[in-house]
Amino acid sequence: MERTKAVVCGATGMVGQVYVAMLSDHPWFELVGVAASERSAGRRYGDAARWYIPGEIPDVARSMTVLPCTADAVTATGATLVFSALPSDVAGPMEHSLADAGMAVVADTASHRMDADVPLIVPEVNADHLAALSVQRAGGRKGFIVTGPNCSTAALILSLKPLQAAFGIRRVIVVTMQALSGAGYAGVPSMAIVDNLIPFIRNEEEKIARETQKMLGSWSDGSFQPADIPVSASCNRVAVLEGHTESVLVELDRFASPEEVEQVLRDFQGEPQRLHLPTAPEHPVIVRAEPDRPQPRLDRLAGEPARARGMTAVAGRIRRDPAFVTGIKYTVLSHNTIRGAAGNAILTAELLAAKGLL
Amino acid sequence: MERTKAVVCGATGMVGQVYVAMLSDHPWFELVGVAASERSAGRRYGDAARWYIPGEIPDVARSMTVLPCTADAVTATGATLVFSALPSDVAGPMEHSLADAGMAVVADTASHRMDADVPLIVPEVNADHLAALSVQRAGGRKGFIVTGPNCSTAALILSLKPLQAAFGIRRVIVVTMQALSGAGYAGVPSMAIVDNLIPFIRNEEEKIARETQKMLGSWSDGSFQPADIPVSASCNRVAVLEGHTESVLVELDRFASPEEVEQVLRDFQGEPQRLHLPTAPEHPVIVRAEPDRPQPRLDRLAGEPARARGMTAVAGRIRRDPAFVTGIKYTVLSHNTIRGAAGNAILTAELLAAKGLL
Amino acid sequence: MERTKAVVCGATGMVGQVYVAMLSDHPWFELVGVAASERSAGRRYGDAARWYIPGEIPDVARSMTVLPCTADAVTATGATLVFSALPSDVAGPMEHSLADAGMAVVADTASHRMDADVPLIVPEVNADHLAALSVQRAGGRKGFIVTGPNCSTAALILSLKPLQAAFGIRRVIVVTMQALSGAGYAGVPSMAIVDNLIPFIRNEEEKIARETQKMLGSWSDGSFQPADIPVSASCNRVAVLEGHTESVLVELDRFASPEEVEQVLRDFQGEPQRLHLPTAPEHPVIVRAEPDRPQPRLDRLAGEPARARGMTAVAGRIRRDPAFVTGIKYTVLSHNTIRGAAGNAILTAELLAAKGLL
Amino acid sequence: MERTKAVVCGATGMVGQVYVAMLSDHPWFELVGVAASERSAGRRYGDAARWYIPGEIPDVARSMTVLPCTADAVTATGATLVFSALPSDVAGPMEHSLADAGMAVVADTASHRMDADVPLIVPEVNADHLAALSVQRAGGRKGFIVTGPNCSTAALILSLKPLQAAFGIRRVIVVTMQALSGAGYAGVPSMAIVDNLIPFIRNEEEKIARETQKMLGSWSDGSFQPADIPVSASCNRVAVLEGHTESVLVELDRFASPEEVEQVLRDFQGEPQRLHLPTAPEHPVIVRAEPDRPQPRLDRLAGEPARARGMTAVAGRIRRDPAFVTGIKYTVLSHNTIRGAAGNAILTAELLAAKGLL
Repeated sequence: MERTKAVVCGATGMVGQVYVAMLSDHPWFELVGVAASERSAGRRYGDAARWYIPGEIPDVARSMTVLPCTADAVTATGATLVFSALPSDVAGPMEHSLADAGMAVVADTASHRMDADVPLIVPEVNADHLAALSVQRAGGRKGFIVTGPNCSTAALILSLKPLQAAFGIRRVIVVTMQALSGAGYAGVPSMAIVDNLIPFIRNEEEKIARETQKMLGSWSDGSFQPADIPVSASCNRVAVLEGHTESVLVELDRFASPEEVEQVLRDFQGEPQRLHLPTAPEHPVIVRAEPDRPQPRLDRLAGEPARARGMTAVAGRIRRDPAFVTGIKYTVLSHNTIRGAAGNAILTAELLAAKGLL
Repeated sequence: MERTKAVVCGATGMVGQVYVAMLSDHPWFELVGVAASERSAGRRYGDAARWYIPGEIPDVARSMTVLPCTADAVTATGATLVFSALPSDVAGPMEHSLADAGMAVVADTASHRMDADVPLIVPEVNADHLAALSVQRAGGRKGFIVTGPNCSTAALILSLKPLQAAFGIRRVIVVTMQALSGAGYAGVPSMAIVDNLIPFIRNEEEKIARETQKMLGSWSDGSFQPADIPVSASCNRVAVLEGHTESVLVELDRFASPEEVEQVLRDFQGEPQRLHLPTAPEHPVIVRAEPDRPQPRLDRLAGEPARARGMTAVAGRIRRDPAFVTGIKYTVLSHNTIRGAAGNAILTAELLAAKGLL
Repeated sequence: MERTKAVVCGATGMVGQVYVAMLSDHPWFELVGVAASERSAGRRYGDAARWYIPGEIPDVARSMTVLPCTADAVTATGATLVFSALPSDVAGPMEHSLADAGMAVVADTASHRMDADVPLIVPEVNADHLAALSVQRAGGRKGFIVTGPNCSTAALILSLKPLQAAFGIRRVIVVTMQALSGAGYAGVPSMAIVDNLIPFIRNEEEKIARETQKMLGSWSDGSFQPADIPVSASCNRVAVLEGHTESVLVELDRFASPEEVEQVLRDFQGEPQRLHLPTAPEHPVIVRAEPDRPQPRLDRLAGEPARARGMTAVAGRIRRDPAFVTGIKYTVLSHNTIRGAAGNAILTAELLAAKGLL
Repeated sequence: MERTKAVVCGATGMVGQVYVAMLSDHPWFELVGVAASERSAGRRYGDAARWYIPGEIPDVARSMTVLPCTADAVTATGATLVFSALPSDVAGPMEHSLADAGMAVVADTASHRMDADVPLIVPEVNADHLAALSVQRAGGRKGFIVTGPNCSTAALILSLKPLQAAFGIRRVIVVTMQALSGAGYAGVPSMAIVDNLIPFIRNEEEKIARETQKMLGSWSDGSFQPADIPVSASCNRVAVLEGHTESVLVELDRFASPEEVEQVLRDFQGEPQRLHLPTAPEHPVIVRAEPDRPQPRLDRLAGEPARARGMTAVAGRIRRDPAFVTGIKYTVLSHNTIRGAAGNAILTAELLAAKGLL
């Protein structure tokens, strides 16, 4: 079987590098180009990308010439699939122009997440939202845009979806402790975070609320109906390299014991598991029994098989909450640049492929 | 005026050292003895205490001979006031025996916090709970025990009290990000926390709930009536040396705007301020306007005058909460070994002195 | 081919866990037992060992019952090979008694490193020192003891050996910046190292000097002749989890340019490479060209093939030194619990096996 | 006595803020202006400077309008003294133009340190080098430029000077472990340094060598004669906020015991101590007896009286070096933004004032 040709836009940044690493030996997708800003375009990728990931830059990418992120340059590679990790100030129009040129654009950027006809997908959670693509194509466009959530929403939504399905959700209160890589390589100066934490991440709390509502909502009659669930988020940056940890309180619609909640999380399976997608973890959520887990350094790379490392959300400390009769509290964690960005996008592209949408 | 003679029990540990530093030049109290475990007793304090605090060990303490923590040894110093920072496995009976020997015991330990006749005091919050001392003395004991809250409760309660008074509180949900020093000098191995966090602190969540309820409650008819306010706490350890940061959500009894809440916090004053106690901060709570404050490294030593550094709780990010009609969210921080332990105890002793109870 | 049965003594500690992980699927050695202190003996390994390594405890070890570290218990497993990661206070006599009972004991502990008849081995550096085993056995003992160097010596010696062979060495000056794991899991409290470093590691400087001299020396006429090379070491602990970084200055016997030095390091090969031992890295030393490498987080797991990750020393910044006519400076790094402990011991055992000494 | 009017150029950066804090209540100098880049000029200092220092921005500076760094703007304030913490890309010509306009310019920047007629001053070390100012003024310029060393040179030179005077120095080998603040607030991304170190700081090793040689040399016959002492430096960045720690090896001209070296360091006094300058520490160097000191977090703010906190270099671990017959090793530390920058410059200005050169 011939692999689908893919280009990564924004390939020199932190998330871009995770895409390159994950695509360097992908069974369904062939990395045929790396694109980045004008500053990097024309340079050898091995020179333009300061490689942040332990280990060597993949051979397939090292000597590629960095392309500009234009529809022409990307089209010329023969690619039909584009992963976008573009900076937020340019992502919006570039992704549009790539889709207009016929590309399937899978973006982990924020620009189009809330667009009325753009699905915001975590494949285990709301694969059915891909139905919205028919609206995009009805507009005459050959390509389309699919997005994934903000990195802090990813872990949360994987744990909320099975609870919503099993018990109903009345209210969500989440406090995040987010990793440094979520701000990009140079996003958080070391002077700001050694012996410190920062109780603020711009726009993050709003994103968690509305993205969660969109993903837990439905697509019907040609539009998204967000779930009517209040989501209160408070976001903090802590001195952790990778892995967002979140303290979650859910008021359920009906009472459930911690044991029932744990079982529902353990049993959760989605389309990727049913379709045996290459990057699908065996379990979207695992639950650890130790009283002091999950911990980001120990749990962020959970996920089997090897290709799915970092794709599993790890939950723990499931317990009743004293503030609500039907309240449940737990801690959940996922790898922010894998499940929260590149990995989720690749899994989404696999889902598109499996459904014949590529 | 002659100063009251005081001994610190548990003087070699982290909190013990903070006591020694704060008492080394105290206007009302004279440090006449340092007591510690059998292992240290008999040694020179300057040798027995591995001094953790930047700067030199105070001269007054350096060449003191460490005493055993017995009523006899403490009594022999002529002291009538004891500050207890004893380890939890021995604190309970030792504090009893010191009180039985006629000492005023001010403890930041957990052993007697929930005792039916022991006040649990943050002087700005519930100075009136000292009325319970009459019950202790009614039992024939010459001395008494007064306690202070767990370090994570201290910041919280300073911010809750004025909200309770002004608006009423229906429910409290708090997620803590606690400093390393809260676990004692060797409590958290570096291997456990570099590039990591730990979403669990043993018994801490229960302590926050019940101590908050006791302190926000009343003393009447000879017993404590805890406040009927559900408190949900989730506790995390992060790579910060000093200063507990807490993400707080309060459902108020009646609607208040963030501006009203801010004003109430700013205006808050308690007995220590009215009595001009030496270690009282001008403001028990200050509110920072920057969107990304408070931060532990920058704000933990807030408090004027100089003697009150670390005694002020710093709040910020006051905003409406989307999960409740009358919900308010904010971040609050205080210094865990000062306001959360030694400083609060010293302020409590000052309050006792001012009220003629020493 | 049947695998040699092996037991790990000191299996619950940090280095013990690395042994267990590396032996869980070893082609030549079969892990048949885990032994530890009396406190752990009799418990399930999965319960006794608080697993510090990201990922799960290997299945082969999880349900083993922890043995006491006695010759009887180890012998009863059928093992003939013992890896010792015992604590320093008990290692010496236990290793003797295991060897007396006929075991091949490969130790990364310090107790016997400087013994007159015990080889101190980094397999690429001084495989010929194994000749000393004949002296051990001449004493009538069935088993024997082989040791590996202190973790900070390992990286250094891998880079010094080829320089000694090619140019001769007159003097070595090394300043180390050592990782936290080198002190054991609870060795360095977080309060001691966040926003800090510690310019002292007990006995470490002496160990580096005498171990380097022994390993760069020769075995002849039935005794070790240490190399006559002054070694000045200054040791520091820094806030890095794994990977010791060392700033090295070598006064060579004859002038060599940085390019010549680099070539000699790159070309270095030892017995493990010639014998294609399973845990041998393709290159014992690699040299990075970037001006700011090696860095512990990025380079500590260097080494191909996969089984040899963490076995390669990474050098960089090779340059002339202004203080000596024939001076060369560079930075070198290796993984302290792999090449500096468990991995080096396993490679040594492989060398023993390949030479028919097991 | 009227205070000398002073302006800080580059006042919004990290070192600029230290100047502002130290000058806010200076007995001899009056802060009359803060100047910065075009981006900040015209704004209120309290808004333009993101205040990095724990505690509040000084009132005297908060509402100053930031000036552009032009001779006209600075002259208009009435100032005759300028402290320059300008970024390196603009410092050179700006400092020239300020001196040409008649200002006494005291700079901690690198631009003019090695100029043939510019003194490079640590006041305790080479106050006599100020004689070079006569050459600057001979050129007809009213003002002049005086500089201070690179932050990593400051601690080193304070410990070398007394050794040179007492024993003579043949060779210096230093390995630094430098704090994050030395690179400026945003200089080191947190992603680069958590669980890591960087064994490279651009141009730093060359600066240490030539600045040390200039300062240990002499001014005679109208020119600087650098000391003929080879200096080998290797520089590393570590996860420490403030305080450069250096592992130093000195080959002395004649043998001295560690005790003699310690005594010489303890006894060291310079012009600032003899002149009782306000920012002079009682002891330019103190020696700690503990085996594991100095440590940056505990020792960086050493220095008495209060105004001189951070001005004392702290040494420890003085011992013989096995690589040289007359070798001495030790660890030394100083606060890089105080003694290594702003504090040293202010002390230099005090020296100028005391000598009638302002």
